[in-house]
Amino acid sequence: MKILVVGASGTIGQAVVQELGKKHEIIRAGRNGQDVKVDMTDIDSIKKMYEDIGKVDAVISTAGSAHYVPVTELTPELNEIGINYKLKGQINLVLLGMNYVNDCGSFTLTTGILMDDPIPQGASAAMANGGVKAFVKAAAIEMPRGIRINSVSPNVVQESLHKFGDMFPGYEAVPASRVALAYKKSVEGAQTGQNYEVY
Amino acid sequence: MKILVVGASGTIGQAVVQELGKKHEIIRAGRNGQDVKVDMTDIDSIKKMYEDIGKVDAVISTAGSAHYVPVTELTPELNEIGINYKLKGQINLVLLGMNYVNDCGSFTLTTGILMDDPIPQGASAAMANGGVKAFVKAAAIEMPRGIRINSVSPNVVQESLHKFGDMFPGYEAVPASRVALAYKKSVEGAQTGQNYEVY
Repeated sequence: MKILVVGASGTIGQAVVQELGKKHEIIRAGRNGQDVKVDMTDIDSIKKMYEDIGKVDAVISTAGSAHYVPVTELTPELNEIGINYKLKGQINLVLLGMNYVNDCGSFTLTTGILMDDPIPQGASAAMANGGVKAFVKAAAIEMPRGIRINSVSPNVVQESLHKFGDMFPGYEAVPASRVALAYKKSVEGAQTGQNYEVY
Repeated sequence: MKILVVGASGTIGQAVVQELGKKHEIIRAGRNGQDVKVDMTDIDSIKKMYEDIGKVDAVISTAGSAHYVPVTELTPELNEIGINYKLKGQINLVLLGMNYVNDCGSFTLTTGILMDDPIPQGASAAMANGGVKAFVKAAAIEMPRGIRINSVSPNVVQESLHKFGDMFPGYEAVPASRVALAYKKSVEGAQTGQNYEVY
């Protein structure tokens, strides 16, 4: 399969590229993408990416940030970051990419544990996660040409503990390689409308 | 209690006003609000509403639309409607209203069954619902001064069947009066971080 990975240089993205690169052709995309550059918050940039790469069998997004701040300090403007990147960015990859995915292909987006198991400062990220999860579940029942759509919800990954560990006391961090398996299941499996929790 | 109801003239809003008006003072707000006018998509309009009404004990939102269209026809632009109204509109009522809610007061937002039990054309609405639900769950653990936050997830209501019934085949529509009870539970009860499903 030919697989587009948006966010390929991130911690999870790298693990996905390593796992799926064993038997598939990977196109690495991202803000500083090694194969294709794309700004997920820019509709024209997403359109141009798809025009440049043409048809693919699967689109994976491991991209999309949000702002971490106590909810008492969360402003509408700071909340826009999660909306523009993690929520709209990922959903627009689907809406604008649907015609570029081959019959019976797939989309796999990324949510996250914060929607299920919240931490302080995580409300905006949780919002984006919950929006993506619900979109995936609903969109799955009317995707055209047998195209499937799932999301993967990772716990905090071991590789990021040095940066974010203090925010996740008592969370059982998972290796990124384990998270990558869920993307493999989504791409090579037959399920749709799922949110694979890797907790 | 003094309770602000945003979306008071809608089908569910009217039922909420009727139920909670039995023992509380209600301020009816909305685009054409009988007591206060507010445009939920406009930050300045939300700020002005709170400045005009001052402190309240509870804020209820039964407002927030989304666009219904097959996912193959859903554009980023059409998806913005659900983001601006149902998702950001409701969340901004919380972010901008936190200082106007008395100690141990509450916010109650509205999600909807489509995130759990999807229908064709419902992906954008589901997205907004899922985002609000996750925000509520995460925000609840760090709300200040004992302020609680919940959401209510209504099924399609019997009063709207003449308009939307064809979109919900086999759904057991619920009376708006039953949905209103969930808002009463949220406002007068002690729970927080809940999404009350009225299915």
